[in-house]
Amino acid sequence: MLISLPKGFSANGIHCGLKRKRRDLSIFYSGKPCKCSAIFTKNLVKAAPVILCRKRIRKNKPVRAVIVNSANANCMTGERGLKDASKMIKSTAEALGVPESSVMVSSTGVIGKYLRMGPVIKGIKKLSKTLSTDGVINAAEGIMTTDRFHKIACRSFKAGGKKIKMVGVAKGAGMIHPDMATMLCYIMTDADIDKKALDKALAAANGTSFSSITVDGDMSTNDSVFLLANGAAANRTITASGRDFKVFLEKLGEVMLDLAKMIVKDGEGASKLIDIHVKGCKTVKDAKKAAMAIAGSLLTKCAVHGGDPNWGRVASSVGASGVDFDPAKMDIILDDVVFLEKGKFLSPDERKLKTVFKGKTVNIEVNLHRGKASAKAYSCDISKKYITINSYYTT
Amino acid sequence: MLISLPKGFSANGIHCGLKRKRRDLSIFYSGKPCKCSAIFTKNLVKAAPVILCRKRIRKNKPVRAVIVNSANANCMTGERGLKDASKMIKSTAEALGVPESSVMVSSTGVIGKYLRMGPVIKGIKKLSKTLSTDGVINAAEGIMTTDRFHKIACRSFKAGGKKIKMVGVAKGAGMIHPDMATMLCYIMTDADIDKKALDKALAAANGTSFSSITVDGDMSTNDSVFLLANGAAANRTITASGRDFKVFLEKLGEVMLDLAKMIVKDGEGASKLIDIHVKGCKTVKDAKKAAMAIAGSLLTKCAVHGGDPNWGRVASSVGASGVDFDPAKMDIILDDVVFLEKGKFLSPDERKLKTVFKGKTVNIEVNLHRGKASAKAYSCDISKKYITINSYYTT
Repeated sequence: MLISLPKGFSANGIHCGLKRKRRDLSIFYSGKPCKCSAIFTKNLVKAAPVILCRKRIRKNKPVRAVIVNSANANCMTGERGLKDASKMIKSTAEALGVPESSVMVSSTGVIGKYLRMGPVIKGIKKLSKTLSTDGVINAAEGIMTTDRFHKIACRSFKAGGKKIKMVGVAKGAGMIHPDMATMLCYIMTDADIDKKALDKALAAANGTSFSSITVDGDMSTNDSVFLLANGAAANRTITASGRDFKVFLEKLGEVMLDLAKMIVKDGEGASKLIDIHVKGCKTVKDAKKAAMAIAGSLLTKCAVHGGDPNWGRVASSVGASGVDFDPAKMDIILDDVVFLEKGKFLSPDERKLKTVFKGKTVNIEVNLHRGKASAKAYSCDISKKYITINSYYTT
Repeated sequence: MLISLPKGFSANGIHCGLKRKRRDLSIFYSGKPCKCSAIFTKNLVKAAPVILCRKRIRKNKPVRAVIVNSANANCMTGERGLKDASKMIKSTAEALGVPESSVMVSSTGVIGKYLRMGPVIKGIKKLSKTLSTDGVINAAEGIMTTDRFHKIACRSFKAGGKKIKMVGVAKGAGMIHPDMATMLCYIMTDADIDKKALDKALAAANGTSFSSITVDGDMSTNDSVFLLANGAAANRTITASGRDFKVFLEKLGEVMLDLAKMIVKDGEGASKLIDIHVKGCKTVKDAKKAAMAIAGSLLTKCAVHGGDPNWGRVASSVGASGVDFDPAKMDIILDDVVFLEKGKFLSPDERKLKTVFKGKTVNIEVNLHRGKASAKAYSCDISKKYITINSYYTT
């Protein structure tokens, strides 16, 4: 598969030496200055690159590049960590010949270890000479940690009278939980769009994608999503109130939901995607709360893993979610088989029962019959592999 | 081990036929009428026995017996479930020759299946003839589900001029999370104590025991704790403001914490107890919130399981807990080895490092240096066995 980036963008990922063999350093670059929106982790313990970028994004300067290392989160590394992140910015700016203020930085990997800056600085120099429009797969690999596959999603569409392209790259497999699933994501588009519209679109699309998935309930210290728009498509500028905004938001939402689902599918040790739909709520907030409670239940993740349609665990999760409802009016439907109807459980026939929770994607639908709001959430099953992967991570 | 119940109490557990071979039906009985306090699950989806007992407890009638079945939770079973729970009460009252209003009922097991009442009713008749003062171990076995061992804790102490005895019996291994760990518990004492003091003691002791443990974050639909006091010790009546209350509360707290720790040790597939102490908080509420966030982290449970002192995951959990603090002032101490001091990580020597997270009980201590409040929480590691146990529970 050859994926080319939107006009004006280039990228690459190389092995600099933080990992034993695999790529561990990536740059996303634009020849033209970009408008940039970003969302960061809400964890109070923030990694050094997140601390720096939160400040930089507020200054609203044009962005030209993001430098990302994997294998080390540069988190809980104090003053030295902040200096290291600044050095990564400085080296990247020098190597690419762009202002320091136009470079962003991310890290992902182990918490509480200093970055080995030798390989990183050498790597930046080498990497910055190799950027290309089809280097995106390498770049996607360079940001991976326990990911089993790289994650890229693309859309092309017309807006403002021109063809627009959008390419998103993400990483994430464990420590995945909102607010904002724990992950890194870089979305590049050649659209011309004003900053206000860009911010609005990112916040909205995040709500129905990265904020609606969970793998293990642990919120990371390094979560970062960057949305870069360089205007190279030369379209009529998209504004938040203009008619082109709708299609931009729709396509951004699709790219981010594609990536979010890839993260869940790649959940450490996971073999199944759980697609949850909670309907009949008074508010979308309630519906999402209930959906995320189901998504987060370790017992339900086990039941899905074993192909065991234990709908009582679904009922129990919704009951414990804090959402108000009447259990006597609840419907629960697993893979199109109705188990509970208005609080009464039916006995599905044996043949149908055998199909439930057996596929690669399983569906859990709950209707509380309290109102018209609904929400979706996505999760994955949990297997013995998750335990193996996470029991010996640092040692 | 022979354990005898407090004066006036008797109990037993038998196999009535809900499980294949093991005991599945228990009665706790007092020859004298008891004052009774109880706490129930906060899950909105409540099992039939919980729905009934919540109403009964409010009427404040003397209690003589509790009938408990395992293997079936009698939850999400609608009108028929309520009728079945009432029948259990009625049969028990008849068999024991006590008023219906003096009988409480509990169930634990699979959600969403009707109880097979034939074996239960027959079992009650048989069981009620076999109660004895040393039948408590059988009774403790009769309430077990996935438990690997029965859970009993005892204390004897002097209060109100007499020797008082207190024996607690509990079950619980999975679906364990506050508010109130998901479990059943019956505490019997021969103390003479007024109702107000009894309620106050149970609420206080619950806060530092069953509300401070987690196994898997799933809150059950059947949680019930009953505290029965029959006054057979003929002590000076204990009141909430009297001088004997302190020792009663202390001993009750010990019994409940013993049982809570047994539940965590027996956490499905668990091999280690995690003892968490968060210090230096502004309020106890904050300290407990942070401690429970560490206790609930799947990643930390994995790290403990693998003997991997991944303290970054501890920092991340506290950061995501919602408690306000300055990461630059945080201490993290694992099994007496200081990993983080005032936000700076130390490099413990290799020999010490090898001892961390290797014992049957592991300690996690966090100091936020924001105030003087502290709290404890208890959890267990997670192993591949947890996945096996919970992937094929109903099928």
